[in-house]
Amino acid sequence: MKLWDKGISIDKKIENFTVGNDRQLDMFLAAHDLQASAAHAKMLGKVGLIGEEEVIQLVEELQRLQQQVKNGTFVIEEDFEDVHSKIEFELTKKLGDTGKKIHTARSRNDQVLVALHLYFRENLQEIISRVNDLIEVLLKLAEEHQNSLLPGYTHLQVAMPSSFGLWFSAYAEILIDDLYQLKAALKIVDQNPLGSAAGYGSSFPIDREFTTKELGFSTLKYNVVAAQMSRGKSERAVTSAIASVANTLSRFSMDICLYMSQNFSFISFPEALTTGSSIMPHKKNPDVFELVRGKSNKLQSIAGEMVLVTNNLPSGYHRDFQVIKENSIYSVEGLKEILDVFTHSISQIIVKEVNLQDEKYKYLFTVDSINDLVMEGKSFREAYQIIGEQVQQGTYEPVGNKHHSHSGSKDNLSLDEIRKKQRSVD
Amino acid sequence: MKLWDKGISIDKKIENFTVGNDRQLDMFLAAHDLQASAAHAKMLGKVGLIGEEEVIQLVEELQRLQQQVKNGTFVIEEDFEDVHSKIEFELTKKLGDTGKKIHTARSRNDQVLVALHLYFRENLQEIISRVNDLIEVLLKLAEEHQNSLLPGYTHLQVAMPSSFGLWFSAYAEILIDDLYQLKAALKIVDQNPLGSAAGYGSSFPIDREFTTKELGFSTLKYNVVAAQMSRGKSERAVTSAIASVANTLSRFSMDICLYMSQNFSFISFPEALTTGSSIMPHKKNPDVFELVRGKSNKLQSIAGEMVLVTNNLPSGYHRDFQVIKENSIYSVEGLKEILDVFTHSISQIIVKEVNLQDEKYKYLFTVDSINDLVMEGKSFREAYQIIGEQVQQGTYEPVGNKHHSHSGSKDNLSLDEIRKKQRSVD
Amino acid sequence: MKLWDKGISIDKKIENFTVGNDRQLDMFLAAHDLQASAAHAKMLGKVGLIGEEEVIQLVEELQRLQQQVKNGTFVIEEDFEDVHSKIEFELTKKLGDTGKKIHTARSRNDQVLVALHLYFRENLQEIISRVNDLIEVLLKLAEEHQNSLLPGYTHLQVAMPSSFGLWFSAYAEILIDDLYQLKAALKIVDQNPLGSAAGYGSSFPIDREFTTKELGFSTLKYNVVAAQMSRGKSERAVTSAIASVANTLSRFSMDICLYMSQNFSFISFPEALTTGSSIMPHKKNPDVFELVRGKSNKLQSIAGEMVLVTNNLPSGYHRDFQVIKENSIYSVEGLKEILDVFTHSISQIIVKEVNLQDEKYKYLFTVDSINDLVMEGKSFREAYQIIGEQVQQGTYEPVGNKHHSHSGSKDNLSLDEIRKKQRSVD
Amino acid sequence: MKLWDKGISIDKKIENFTVGNDRQLDMFLAAHDLQASAAHAKMLGKVGLIGEEEVIQLVEELQRLQQQVKNGTFVIEEDFEDVHSKIEFELTKKLGDTGKKIHTARSRNDQVLVALHLYFRENLQEIISRVNDLIEVLLKLAEEHQNSLLPGYTHLQVAMPSSFGLWFSAYAEILIDDLYQLKAALKIVDQNPLGSAAGYGSSFPIDREFTTKELGFSTLKYNVVAAQMSRGKSERAVTSAIASVANTLSRFSMDICLYMSQNFSFISFPEALTTGSSIMPHKKNPDVFELVRGKSNKLQSIAGEMVLVTNNLPSGYHRDFQVIKENSIYSVEGLKEILDVFTHSISQIIVKEVNLQDEKYKYLFTVDSINDLVMEGKSFREAYQIIGEQVQQGTYEPVGNKHHSHSGSKDNLSLDEIRKKQRSVD
Repeated sequence: MKLWDKGISIDKKIENFTVGNDRQLDMFLAAHDLQASAAHAKMLGKVGLIGEEEVIQLVEELQRLQQQVKNGTFVIEEDFEDVHSKIEFELTKKLGDTGKKIHTARSRNDQVLVALHLYFRENLQEIISRVNDLIEVLLKLAEEHQNSLLPGYTHLQVAMPSSFGLWFSAYAEILIDDLYQLKAALKIVDQNPLGSAAGYGSSFPIDREFTTKELGFSTLKYNVVAAQMSRGKSERAVTSAIASVANTLSRFSMDICLYMSQNFSFISFPEALTTGSSIMPHKKNPDVFELVRGKSNKLQSIAGEMVLVTNNLPSGYHRDFQVIKENSIYSVEGLKEILDVFTHSISQIIVKEVNLQDEKYKYLFTVDSINDLVMEGKSFREAYQIIGEQVQQGTYEPVGNKHHSHSGSKDNLSLDEIRKKQRSVD
Repeated sequence: MKLWDKGISIDKKIENFTVGNDRQLDMFLAAHDLQASAAHAKMLGKVGLIGEEEVIQLVEELQRLQQQVKNGTFVIEEDFEDVHSKIEFELTKKLGDTGKKIHTARSRNDQVLVALHLYFRENLQEIISRVNDLIEVLLKLAEEHQNSLLPGYTHLQVAMPSSFGLWFSAYAEILIDDLYQLKAALKIVDQNPLGSAAGYGSSFPIDREFTTKELGFSTLKYNVVAAQMSRGKSERAVTSAIASVANTLSRFSMDICLYMSQNFSFISFPEALTTGSSIMPHKKNPDVFELVRGKSNKLQSIAGEMVLVTNNLPSGYHRDFQVIKENSIYSVEGLKEILDVFTHSISQIIVKEVNLQDEKYKYLFTVDSINDLVMEGKSFREAYQIIGEQVQQGTYEPVGNKHHSHSGSKDNLSLDEIRKKQRSVD
Repeated sequence: MKLWDKGISIDKKIENFTVGNDRQLDMFLAAHDLQASAAHAKMLGKVGLIGEEEVIQLVEELQRLQQQVKNGTFVIEEDFEDVHSKIEFELTKKLGDTGKKIHTARSRNDQVLVALHLYFRENLQEIISRVNDLIEVLLKLAEEHQNSLLPGYTHLQVAMPSSFGLWFSAYAEILIDDLYQLKAALKIVDQNPLGSAAGYGSSFPIDREFTTKELGFSTLKYNVVAAQMSRGKSERAVTSAIASVANTLSRFSMDICLYMSQNFSFISFPEALTTGSSIMPHKKNPDVFELVRGKSNKLQSIAGEMVLVTNNLPSGYHRDFQVIKENSIYSVEGLKEILDVFTHSISQIIVKEVNLQDEKYKYLFTVDSINDLVMEGKSFREAYQIIGEQVQQGTYEPVGNKHHSHSGSKDNLSLDEIRKKQRSVD
Repeated sequence: MKLWDKGISIDKKIENFTVGNDRQLDMFLAAHDLQASAAHAKMLGKVGLIGEEEVIQLVEELQRLQQQVKNGTFVIEEDFEDVHSKIEFELTKKLGDTGKKIHTARSRNDQVLVALHLYFRENLQEIISRVNDLIEVLLKLAEEHQNSLLPGYTHLQVAMPSSFGLWFSAYAEILIDDLYQLKAALKIVDQNPLGSAAGYGSSFPIDREFTTKELGFSTLKYNVVAAQMSRGKSERAVTSAIASVANTLSRFSMDICLYMSQNFSFISFPEALTTGSSIMPHKKNPDVFELVRGKSNKLQSIAGEMVLVTNNLPSGYHRDFQVIKENSIYSVEGLKEILDVFTHSISQIIVKEVNLQDEKYKYLFTVDSINDLVMEGKSFREAYQIIGEQVQQGTYEPVGNKHHSHSGSKDNLSLDEIRKKQRSVD
């Protein structure tokens, strides 16, 4: 049951190769294809390409299938190469000739495009929402632990005093940068490609503004060739924005794994969030965060695949575009899961008390000592020289913890300003 | 003359290795470091860390150096490891103790960060402007050649009628998607990191809002740890947005090279834009566009480097960050040059008349033939069957070129709507 | 049923996250784990850690499970987090305390490592064999079509005469370069990591030379830390070698798709190997080769993922390594399928007669014309000038096809030498 | 002075764009082009295309230039677009018509190809030699420090006892895997492409076996189309092998930076190998190793660029190939420098005494405790349970350091076997 079947038997091996795992992947697109097909049917009615009664029948049948998707009873049987064939088959089985009319003024190309755009749009919105939730969790943790000090490192060497408040809210604020990228990707997919057909439009008098409104798109991808060209481009934009979030979570998880090491011992997690070893009975391993890191790093490599597959191809559709469906969907679903698990887990973090009096943290305060000298009138470079010599000769005595007053410093976290910035992202 | 020199002679080989090509790269940052240093000096005066007279002296001296940069007479001599040492040296040479005070409440880390942010901001604005120029050139070409037909391809097979109007404006519209990404990157770098010092702030009562305003940043990167973390993140955002433009130009150039081939022969360029061969005297090769393609593809790989170098590093500064300076600057300067050359070249394109009557383009019109049958009452699937049989039996006769009426189609390019969308990007 | 279960209930969501799709992936490793476990059991017997009777029981039971794998009846139920837990459970269920002894002197880490090494080794050998088969198919096609001429292109511009013989055997010879890489990867995985336990060896007096011999490894990965470090490194080596083959197939497929275009029309394929369009009834699209290209390009991006996930991690096992199992196996299985489909398909290629007399190919022979002048005594640069002027003035008349005599030229394909080189790869 | 100059003035901007930085890069290729040109001249004489006297003149002149290269007096002036134009100009200036004959039966394409192959071959041999040197340094360090214990980590958690001997020799042994890849790359470039001309051979009766022998290549890249196709393929092979070494050095450097942190404090380096901070006078930062890591990671991204630029291009030369010259040379020169600095630096490492009695390392010995119980007759799983309970209840008492006897363990480093494996790489 292939739509382009010309009555010639195709080698089974070739078929498996060309169909790939479309059936599984298309389950993520089913709801979106049904939605777009209903909009398309209404438009066909509006411009008179099908009758009003036919519109009603098609829409009803599409809604019935939509219900199946919601119930989890929708299935793409082995007979179908993808969700699109399946839906058209169902419409035709129920509605006969009327069913066959759904593909009027449409090509598989724009049908897939619009379903993907709807899928990406919905999921980017969901991801943005989860990132915002995580930011809030982190800002609350920052507030709660703003007075717990941490050694700050540069070059992995003990450097200057930091705090858990700074650490948590740093990741909150850096996630705002990721929001900018997610929003840009959202704008890129929030443009209606339906009506571009195979990439060269249609001689039918279709109404693309109608489907745009019906599907809630902010605008059209007007040019039909551009609409087709957005295949590959939108996947790259989406997976690249996702990679940006993944990059943040990966680095955060590296901190976490390091800080859980006995050599740092800054934090821990409840046992339910750690795992054991098949050989060492004492182990409480941070597998969850290692997997967040590993899976996030995997997500970071996907944007590169999108480019590698589509790069240097002349304009116009190529079957290669099918290949990137898998990992662009994987990227979306993967980040949602990671965000879920990470937010769930980080909120259970146990902050330990870190003894900054420990010998190894002695030099944390040299800059503050220098600054004291500067406040007494020395130039910075002179003060640096003086304290440097004390360190060299082993006579340096740490000053206690100094109050930092400026915006974004350990004693003035500017959490409200960060929240304000977060809310202003659009 | 290294600021951190502790009087210990360092192996020359090691020095070359650590300094790398900073001196050359820093020429791109000189103006920005001078600008940020002046803002920093004023702030130090405002909060009373240096005297008013000192502010005036420092700012004057910085302006003098700024003038050198403009004149092209500013040089970073071999004695200096980077632009920052050079500038501090000049200030100290001229102003003595006052010069030494410029580094008060500042670290090399936030000094480099703010210079990079200013550099990226200025250049993203320039790139956005050049992309907008290119869009306008393409829309004008689309207008001019809207009635010149082209065969449209899918799978590199002759598919449906297209036009030069569609082709040019497709690339114009897809560049708008790249603008979304450039703007997102711009927002990411348009945040003031100055005052974060080594990534843990300062015990001095500095005024970060003052420098933010002075440098025209839209907001602060408040959290000092986040400010440091933006190293790597901003380079990735910038180079990824640049890669998005490069992706478009690369695919465009592939089309151009293909269409210049004798087997297509859709376009040509004046001789000044083609190059010859050392062995074949008849060659007029599209080297310019091959190099746009190749260089654009190179730019597309740079975002990956930014990730690979900074990934899995714990938070806090690492010297590794120095390594990504080179290619993030290369990416910026490279795209500017490519945009320049490409816009210059594409505006000289010679559009040839393509004979769509040629036997090999015969089947361009099958979809229009099907649509005619549909308009006469057949369902799409039936009409498809009928025309399919005609093709199979060799009896198919092409209909002439049909008018396409819908938005974004070859006879209704929606150029004004595209322009409107372009202007709305923010 | 987790081996490290410490009686604490673990959040279900976390469990799904940490187990991932190990159960499916491990089906590829089952046979190899069983093989390695049998070798391990025999070694334990040899050094006296278990009794002779126990060895016999364990090996018999492992062989029974091996039989299940062969029959396709082996299943990893939902109760098990991976194949290793499943196998140990089966042994313990059948053999009680004896079953529990299989994990003596072994960690999950080296157990997974050795299974992966065996899997990669077997499959690299299979891939090498398929590449050799493809080379032979191509050399035969080259022989068969050695007299069919093709235009040769540089810059996609008509350049000099080529032939199908050259084209086919070029890809054959370039595949030999891929063989060098496959063999290097094979050497890297053909080293026994078993006995390295969790990466720090064991206080048991195990005999690693015995298992090395038993499993047919060429050598040991001696150092236990190095053995652990080979996680990530071997996956990179394997997927990078696979990418090399994929690169060749991708470029070959690009040629094929281009040459099938009506604008070239150099080749075609039987209908069973082409696919139609849902909208254009005349289409015979080269989907198989577009998918070879797309899937090959996807494979080319996987080595990057291996690096991105494992890069910048300190030595010692991290759970992140689990993440790369999926795509390293995908890479292996993917290339095997691609090679299968490609070899099957290319052998059915239909070579068309290309009319080199066509006006657009006129300048194919300019270099031969120059060479004629050189043979008559002109210097190359002078002759180039003369023919160049003829081309400029439109007076150039092509000479006919000239015989090329040197090794590797169109009339002297050196197929035997290429075969000899192929056989010498080790 | 462009060889393909057809008397038409070319826009200066375009010229800069197309020439790029070839002049600088070609300095790395000058010696190799001169060598190949001499071999080509001799061949032309042998087959009678030029006279014996001409051969002598050409070879002498090429040797004179070769001497300039050695002296460092060879310069490619701004008038020339690359080294090839420069050399031909010199020959013609000195020898008149004879000089013009050097380009007989050769194209710029195979001229560049053969120079690159010679450059890569020479440098891969040099890199292999430096890697072998580093292995030897590491094995000696392993020997020297074989009795100094280290905590071994998994998941960055304290796991089992390791040693400096294990640590050093692990990296030695893993470098052998990199040697396999370097050798594979060497075989790929050790094939003569000269004589393939523009990728379609020549009608001249050239003798490619002669130049192969003259240049010391192991074999020919016979097929002329394959020879051209090796552009991109060889750069990928070379940079991918280099990336493999870089991967090892990057991970090694991560260990080093971590172990230098005050929280580990396992090692240190003489002051000459550490650097200070512009703000913190106490800092002794491991910049050298951070830069080894960062630069190595940069090298790891270059193979991806080689693919991205050349992927999906149809066969035959494209100007895009020029673009990858820069970073493939950068990769080679970069790794040589890194190996130099790393080997120099690691040999000065100061191994500290690590107190494994420290409370945080208490559980290092649980596996050894379990093994003791197993040796007394318990099954592994039972023993694991018993020690696990002791740990849980805080009653666990560490056993002392146990002797490990098997190959590759801390007390049996198998250094001779590793050396033997190293020597067997071919």
